[in-house]
Amino acid sequence: MLSLKEPSSRAWLGRVGGHLEELLIDHAHCEKKAAGVAMNLLFSYVDCLPLARAMTEIVEEELEHFRMVLDLLDRRGVRFRKLSPSAYGSRLHALVRKGEPERAIDRLLVAGLIEARSCERFALLRDHVGDGELRDFWGGLFESEARHHSTYVRLAKEFGPEEAVIDRLGELSAAEAAIVAEGEPLVRMHS
Amino acid sequence: MLSLKEPSSRAWLGRVGGHLEELLIDHAHCEKKAAGVAMNLLFSYVDCLPLARAMTEIVEEELEHFRMVLDLLDRRGVRFRKLSPSAYGSRLHALVRKGEPERAIDRLLVAGLIEARSCERFALLRDHVGDGELRDFWGGLFESEARHHSTYVRLAKEFGPEEAVIDRLGELSAAEAAIVAEGEPLVRMHS
Repeated sequence: MLSLKEPSSRAWLGRVGGHLEELLIDHAHCEKKAAGVAMNLLFSYVDCLPLARAMTEIVEEELEHFRMVLDLLDRRGVRFRKLSPSAYGSRLHALVRKGEPERAIDRLLVAGLIEARSCERFALLRDHVGDGELRDFWGGLFESEARHHSTYVRLAKEFGPEEAVIDRLGELSAAEAAIVAEGEPLVRMHS
Repeated sequence: MLSLKEPSSRAWLGRVGGHLEELLIDHAHCEKKAAGVAMNLLFSYVDCLPLARAMTEIVEEELEHFRMVLDLLDRRGVRFRKLSPSAYGSRLHALVRKGEPERAIDRLLVAGLIEARSCERFALLRDHVGDGELRDFWGGLFESEARHHSTYVRLAKEFGPEEAVIDRLGELSAAEAAIVAEGEPLVRMHS
């Protein structure tokens, strides 16, 4: 799906399925982090105008989703709190090359892969969670994550030749699939 | 005006008045930085829910203003580019105390003072610039900057007793007035 090399395992669903409140809290943090990633890209490459404009839109959408998760937690009487993140994000960011424009390409592709994995997991939750409100909620976010994925891959091509970007996306998505296959014993969107 | 101890000098107007295109480019960067400040506060104090929700709204508004300035530059055929910042922001941030909750209080009050100064300068530009489109543009942003100022001061009171917060606001606004009185030979919103 999208640029992902491997689907999520059923083990992940088993790990999170009985702890949906904790998963929702992590989901709120994921939306916040996604907004932060887009904001950092805006600061780093603000003079690339297509990127600058697209990042403002992604920040706004992610923050709207963040508020939606806070509202959902509120309605369920679940206290929002800090959570330790899974290692998924930091392991992916460790793959980003140092010099420019490679660094820009990799940061955009990593952001795009995280969106793709979120998208895939929202679809899994939509199809397998018993709670109707949560099923609808996650299903409703599917489209925007897929769109953000495409935006990031398209913007990466502003920084290098299309073929090189697609090759690099293949390398990074293979690494992403390996990280996801290892898994982590945590209730997280990206564990 | 607002919590400001001293009005801007006419010297500032004289410095920027003949370089409105450069001032507009700096204005775009100011909106971006204001969004970044609110995002950083969201990340630092995400479990203070009134703050978290207010920061998402401020980020969204600042990014909308950022896009508005980009559009204005675009219509005028002015190329958006990176600019070295004035020392105003870093000099203010250097006043932030280290330990919590003092750090939270100071970060919020400094953010509030920057909004207040922007507000005051937009009013000056609205009242003294010959270009009608720019006058209307800056005049139209006045209200949201004033509102953001109030939001930041109100949120600071989530982290300490009202009286201590107001005393500290007095100290920081005196320091802000001194920085502004010194000025800087640059065409910047906060030079």
